[in-house]
Amino acid sequence: MFEIKNHNLYMDGVSTVELANQFGTPLYVYSEDKILANLKEIKNAFLSKYENSHAAFACKAFCTKYICRLLDQEGFWLDVVSGGELYTAMSVNFPANRIEFNGNNKSIEEIKLALNYGVNRFVVDSVSEFFTLEQICKQMGRSANILFRITPNVSANTHDYISTGKKDSKFGIPLNEMILFPLIEKAIHSEVLNFLGFHFHVGSQLHETQTHLSALEVILELMLTTKMKFNHTIEDFNFGGGFGVKYTEADQPLGISDFVDPIMARLTEFCEANNIDRPHVSMEPGRFIVGEAGIQLYSIGTIKEIPEIKTYLSVDGGMTDNIRPGLYGARYTALLANKADLNATEVVDISGKCCESTDILIKSLQLPPAEAGDILAVFSTGAYGYSMANNYNKLPIPPVVVISEGEPKLIVRGQTYEEMISREL
Amino acid sequence: MFEIKNHNLYMDGVSTVELANQFGTPLYVYSEDKILANLKEIKNAFLSKYENSHAAFACKAFCTKYICRLLDQEGFWLDVVSGGELYTAMSVNFPANRIEFNGNNKSIEEIKLALNYGVNRFVVDSVSEFFTLEQICKQMGRSANILFRITPNVSANTHDYISTGKKDSKFGIPLNEMILFPLIEKAIHSEVLNFLGFHFHVGSQLHETQTHLSALEVILELMLTTKMKFNHTIEDFNFGGGFGVKYTEADQPLGISDFVDPIMARLTEFCEANNIDRPHVSMEPGRFIVGEAGIQLYSIGTIKEIPEIKTYLSVDGGMTDNIRPGLYGARYTALLANKADLNATEVVDISGKCCESTDILIKSLQLPPAEAGDILAVFSTGAYGYSMANNYNKLPIPPVVVISEGEPKLIVRGQTYEEMISREL
Repeated sequence: MFEIKNHNLYMDGVSTVELANQFGTPLYVYSEDKILANLKEIKNAFLSKYENSHAAFACKAFCTKYICRLLDQEGFWLDVVSGGELYTAMSVNFPANRIEFNGNNKSIEEIKLALNYGVNRFVVDSVSEFFTLEQICKQMGRSANILFRITPNVSANTHDYISTGKKDSKFGIPLNEMILFPLIEKAIHSEVLNFLGFHFHVGSQLHETQTHLSALEVILELMLTTKMKFNHTIEDFNFGGGFGVKYTEADQPLGISDFVDPIMARLTEFCEANNIDRPHVSMEPGRFIVGEAGIQLYSIGTIKEIPEIKTYLSVDGGMTDNIRPGLYGARYTALLANKADLNATEVVDISGKCCESTDILIKSLQLPPAEAGDILAVFSTGAYGYSMANNYNKLPIPPVVVISEGEPKLIVRGQTYEEMISREL
Repeated sequence: MFEIKNHNLYMDGVSTVELANQFGTPLYVYSEDKILANLKEIKNAFLSKYENSHAAFACKAFCTKYICRLLDQEGFWLDVVSGGELYTAMSVNFPANRIEFNGNNKSIEEIKLALNYGVNRFVVDSVSEFFTLEQICKQMGRSANILFRITPNVSANTHDYISTGKKDSKFGIPLNEMILFPLIEKAIHSEVLNFLGFHFHVGSQLHETQTHLSALEVILELMLTTKMKFNHTIEDFNFGGGFGVKYTEADQPLGISDFVDPIMARLTEFCEANNIDRPHVSMEPGRFIVGEAGIQLYSIGTIKEIPEIKTYLSVDGGMTDNIRPGLYGARYTALLANKADLNATEVVDISGKCCESTDILIKSLQLPPAEAGDILAVFSTGAYGYSMANNYNKLPIPPVVVISEGEPKLIVRGQTYEEMISREL
């Protein structure tokens, strides 16, 4: 994916310095080859290896028409969490039968939009959503497949903000037999809702499998109880995403196999032991597919040396195009794309352009001596950068380029000043 | 500003429940009367009381054409920090001679835009910006007024993210005589830059004056040194903003007088004692002008009771329209606008709609028993809500309404799904 030629950083054979010159900075750049390689890993380690399975891209990580088209071509599903994400999928005619609809607070309008488009399934996140969905289906004369998202009461070893499976969570239906079993019974007997099975999502950016495996035990127990109590076989099981990627050297990500194989081994063993058909299985990777496939390019502007304290290099973007350092304390690594083979002899902080102390992108980064106009390439910014971009300080949202078959293609053009105030009356 | 009639919350005589019905939710609502009252406080406590002064709205807090027009009418200045903010001001013909340009990394294009428009002054944030600005002025045959933003090495008693005056800061010129004095000397002798004086900004949302007063001592020392060393009188002094507002009962904000009077007393005393003319003084309030003047309205959707843990009420917005709880741990208070006089007998968490655990707007909020469809009014959201809004989860940016002379006026219409993907190719 990356190589250094003539001092410059190349990505899939294209000079990132030339990209910065051609498209300007700040710039989001994606490697289609890397996205495809990640999809291939999911195919090899999951879809081809285990029949009766699918993988849905959690498109909140990078929701664009481009990625929807690519995933469609590759046979993947989409996991959407809003009417806007569904609208994006619809705009490229993404097949409705490969869309699943997640989210803790789907609106009536969004549910209707999804029913009209015919999405394959709703991941029902609460008791009230079940009744709302059932009522809307009856009104519209429609039916829908559903899974119940379960809160499996496990804690993921990750940032508190992105740990989603623990007992106190805004997500999922509580693991409480007074709540869950009556709901399952109603779902089994619903005239308009087709109850397929269970879903969990235990957290994000995980580098261990134990959280998934602990949550799996909860689901296995539920499968068995559903069988024994209601004589109903669970057809479908979705174990979410959370597969970590490499941001810095501190990250030692696992492969998809490392997550999938123990899950599938335990699931298969359990089903055989209990004489249950193994359900259809699915996952929802987001960051895994796009995280490492994206970089961001910035131009260095102001260089501020504070004697005996540190040096700040300011870039022409920041928390407006990547809010993760401010929001989660997320760490990244970077280099000077036009001095990519020089020794990193300095230690600097990379500060963003926003008029706010929060706006520090990278702390204590080792770089060669920098000058204004140098191009900074920040790695592994493909997930949750563009999708969380904002106009704070009235900074326009940067363009997005994808390198496809060795050629850069502009997939999102940069926002203009005029566009930023176009809704004002 | 607020009253309760027929169980409903009214703002400036308008039912917030009717606003929610008319304009939909989520919705930003501003009270023009409250903004005007805040401006009046600044006029009375600062502008009228102390001659040779001005106040510039830090428009990053709520940068819209509407507020620019209103501030123009009221004779205020604007503090802009980017080309986009300047463009917004230009779009309503805001007088250039009442605009100051701040920011730690102004681009060459932004500097040229500002010079062409003729902004009154640049607050120069670094040594390198001084030379860049001087060079551009020479190329363009222009001149510019400048202030130096000084890092006064004081720590504000506030969230680390919004403390900006300490020694290790991305903002300002370090208080180092090897750096600062040669720069002041160059500024005094510049042919194109007119050196007016000094600027500091010590932090945000402050409820005490000591940080400003400590920083003031630094500036006084610099004024005297500049006089003695270079026989040059400082004409201008800007003490920034940071004046705290009331988000919850835990906040006990000071009045503008509480900040201004001690600053002006000490400044006047110092100038008299040292036989220096008292400089023109200015401030840059942002949050103070709009923070308490804005509320946000949401509809309650999913209600999730987790037995023995807590109840989550989900609303139809969240970190997309107000990221401050996620970003800073900011606290807010709220009530049910359609049950405004009912006893708050429940304790709930307000969760946003985003598919992300971060998206909790308010923790442990006391409310009356809620139902789906109730309207939640969150107070003091006028600053940094709309201005940091984003399309995460592809949620559209909500509309903005201002109540002016008892009538709601739509000043920003809501974003459409189509607009969210309109730049995609």
